[in-house]
Amino acid sequence: MVGNTKVGSDTICALATPPGVGGLAVVRVSGPKAFEMCDLFFQGGVRIPHAEGHTIHYGWWIIENQRVDSATASIFRAPHSYTGEDVVEIGCHGGVFVVEQITTSLLSSGVRLAQPGEFTRRAFINGKLDLTQAEAVADLIHAESRVGAQTAARQLSGGFTARLANLRQGLLDVIGLLELELDFSEEDVEFVDRTTLLRTLSEIISDIDATAATAHSAEVLRAGFHVAVVGYPNVGKSSLFNALLQRDRAIVSDVPGTTRDYLSEVIFLDGYSIHLVDTAGLRSTEDQVELQGIALTTSLIEQSDLIMVVNDASLGRDHSVSLLMDLKGRFTDIPTVTIQNKIDLIPGYDANLDTDDIVCSAQTGKGLDGLRGYLLEAVRVSTSGVSDVLINARQAHLLRSAAESLRSARSGVEGGLTGDLLAVDIRSAIRLLGDIAGESWNPDVLESVFSRFCIGK
Amino acid sequence: MVGNTKVGSDTICALATPPGVGGLAVVRVSGPKAFEMCDLFFQGGVRIPHAEGHTIHYGWWIIENQRVDSATASIFRAPHSYTGEDVVEIGCHGGVFVVEQITTSLLSSGVRLAQPGEFTRRAFINGKLDLTQAEAVADLIHAESRVGAQTAARQLSGGFTARLANLRQGLLDVIGLLELELDFSEEDVEFVDRTTLLRTLSEIISDIDATAATAHSAEVLRAGFHVAVVGYPNVGKSSLFNALLQRDRAIVSDVPGTTRDYLSEVIFLDGYSIHLVDTAGLRSTEDQVELQGIALTTSLIEQSDLIMVVNDASLGRDHSVSLLMDLKGRFTDIPTVTIQNKIDLIPGYDANLDTDDIVCSAQTGKGLDGLRGYLLEAVRVSTSGVSDVLINARQAHLLRSAAESLRSARSGVEGGLTGDLLAVDIRSAIRLLGDIAGESWNPDVLESVFSRFCIGK
Repeated sequence: MVGNTKVGSDTICALATPPGVGGLAVVRVSGPKAFEMCDLFFQGGVRIPHAEGHTIHYGWWIIENQRVDSATASIFRAPHSYTGEDVVEIGCHGGVFVVEQITTSLLSSGVRLAQPGEFTRRAFINGKLDLTQAEAVADLIHAESRVGAQTAARQLSGGFTARLANLRQGLLDVIGLLELELDFSEEDVEFVDRTTLLRTLSEIISDIDATAATAHSAEVLRAGFHVAVVGYPNVGKSSLFNALLQRDRAIVSDVPGTTRDYLSEVIFLDGYSIHLVDTAGLRSTEDQVELQGIALTTSLIEQSDLIMVVNDASLGRDHSVSLLMDLKGRFTDIPTVTIQNKIDLIPGYDANLDTDDIVCSAQTGKGLDGLRGYLLEAVRVSTSGVSDVLINARQAHLLRSAAESLRSARSGVEGGLTGDLLAVDIRSAIRLLGDIAGESWNPDVLESVFSRFCIGK
Repeated sequence: MVGNTKVGSDTICALATPPGVGGLAVVRVSGPKAFEMCDLFFQGGVRIPHAEGHTIHYGWWIIENQRVDSATASIFRAPHSYTGEDVVEIGCHGGVFVVEQITTSLLSSGVRLAQPGEFTRRAFINGKLDLTQAEAVADLIHAESRVGAQTAARQLSGGFTARLANLRQGLLDVIGLLELELDFSEEDVEFVDRTTLLRTLSEIISDIDATAATAHSAEVLRAGFHVAVVGYPNVGKSSLFNALLQRDRAIVSDVPGTTRDYLSEVIFLDGYSIHLVDTAGLRSTEDQVELQGIALTTSLIEQSDLIMVVNDASLGRDHSVSLLMDLKGRFTDIPTVTIQNKIDLIPGYDANLDTDDIVCSAQTGKGLDGLRGYLLEAVRVSTSGVSDVLINARQAHLLRSAAESLRSARSGVEGGLTGDLLAVDIRSAIRLLGDIAGESWNPDVLESVFSRFCIGK
């Protein structure tokens, strides 16, 4: 069932550039009255309603005879715009009060403030991009790694869309042959060789399974690699944090989820964001580290991709072993690594000892490059397998459901079911794959997809 | 002497929109190779070097055959651009890694990262705007009040430029007549009536003085109105802060100068930013408030436009009088006001008592509107007199020097000096007024003006 939503009945606007102070800000206006409304305030060499599409005009934004800013108006005529509607992009100086005045003037004239993702939502409804491409837009904006952004760009350019279409075409071909059998059902012929059919289904199932399995890697590329840093007090966790931050502090400044409840810093290695998470719970306890009862700590560690136990090597290589064992026992799915810190305090320490541990000194900087290399490799391993799409929860769910239907069809083949019964499951898979690209949708799906967006996109 | 600087010999680029995450980011490229360099990476329906000026093109930014983002390229051909050079504005998705990749690709091809204000500096050197208009650009971006932004817009549109030109024309007319006298000097005639000359000079002097005197008001409009909030411990300063912030927290999020050393919050009343500044020094002391020796506190109060003494009225209306007197004695130029807080603790308190104090309860909210009204009025009074320019230190200095020269000329008239001697001083004033608009300049002046800018403008 294709939903329908009244699109473009009203005209919307929003600041499209990041909030804050900068040289340039852009206010985007989209909808049937975009030209008319901007023409009320923009005075340039040409009246906006008469301007050609894809042209830019210098002028002034004027409210009640007061010049508010010199501005540019970029004109996009429907359907040749991002949303598919008439669009004006007003380029103005990036001051808070300039943007405020321009936005307020439009709102007071009957333009509505856009909801998060509403421009892209209109683009989707007007057929400018499919749902996976719309999702790629959000991932491009929020990706916390270069590879993540690159993958999202491939997704935006339709790489995944084409692959989905291929899969569906393969299944549609099978359906076609099965239906042909149906027409000749009284003659008891099989147009589709059952062995070939089994192979085809298995290939498609494993392709879908493999894609769905990249959901975790995609999340790392999207939201960063999270390292829980744990250790007994005074093992030098803070010094290690600072030593790493000094050189590699991430250019990603506003990390959502960073709260005052725990210490989280982001370092930036070769295009990857790595979140180092320390916890108030562990920091505040005394000599004995009590993981029990500290719900936040447990939850933070559960959400990590790696547990890094920092040990004070000067107290002995095995000083933190019981902590390590405790963590391994509790969080069985999360890899762990031990950092042997403070080796500067051990004269003659042989860094080449046969150990999987990372050996370093936050104090002198020795071994830190090795630690960086280890982290980078850990991120690379955990994000391998991602190619043309950053699978998200919605897509993974639909992929898994489609694979389930195909597995049911495969069992049916093995059990000798007739083509018409097999077709039911295969058709269901085709529909689910179609839902990924948004061939059919309902308002709830769109709500959930576009609520991830920022305002202005 | 008009300086000369090699402009536009190289091509520069920078992110023009605020840093951070948002729907849209714009990377600006300006210089002789802007088209050629962008053409290396941008693939759209038309090659950038062949695109017409003031047109926008959809395409992809492609690095080593990898699509990095769908992008728009806005083309501006010299001299019809912001800088007066060939300019491309690349509109891309506002993700950190998208911007990073686009910028990096340009930098690796020989484009240079723009310095702060370099685009506007090139615009100035290419005669697209004068120096007061360039300064208006920075003020438009950074203004912390709506009136400040509006004034900067008038300045940008040339209001002040025209007024300066008028003043200079008036002085040039006088010079012309004085020179005519010179030609007939042997005949001892006076073409310029000395009484009229005195009146003309006095009018111009008082106009210049009045304009220079708005420097402080301009600073408030530019950087906000600063209120030092002081009081003995437990008078309810924090509650008062919170009560005001709850409703009026400023939309200006990143306020430069806010450090962890003291507490500073911004509220937003009718388009004005009001900085409420509490100090660690006063906060950390015990019952006895020791202003002595707390250099930071003293410095913060010195920079304030108003001192607000919060008194716990339940301990008596005059409980903070000694603190108030101390402050009045130390900071003689700064107005003070006393807030009688916690009136909710005084049953039957008559708010209409004959007092200049503000009477309120942070707890119940009673009287807070009165406090807001008081603050708003204080800002309005302190920013009155500003019309078409936000005078800054450079302009004020030149204005005062020009007035000085004219005062010297006026004394000369009174002392019976001849026209040629009077002309020397008047000419000096004309030159100084010309320097305000940047008719002559040296690299140091430009350095100082444009270092106030952000990168990308």
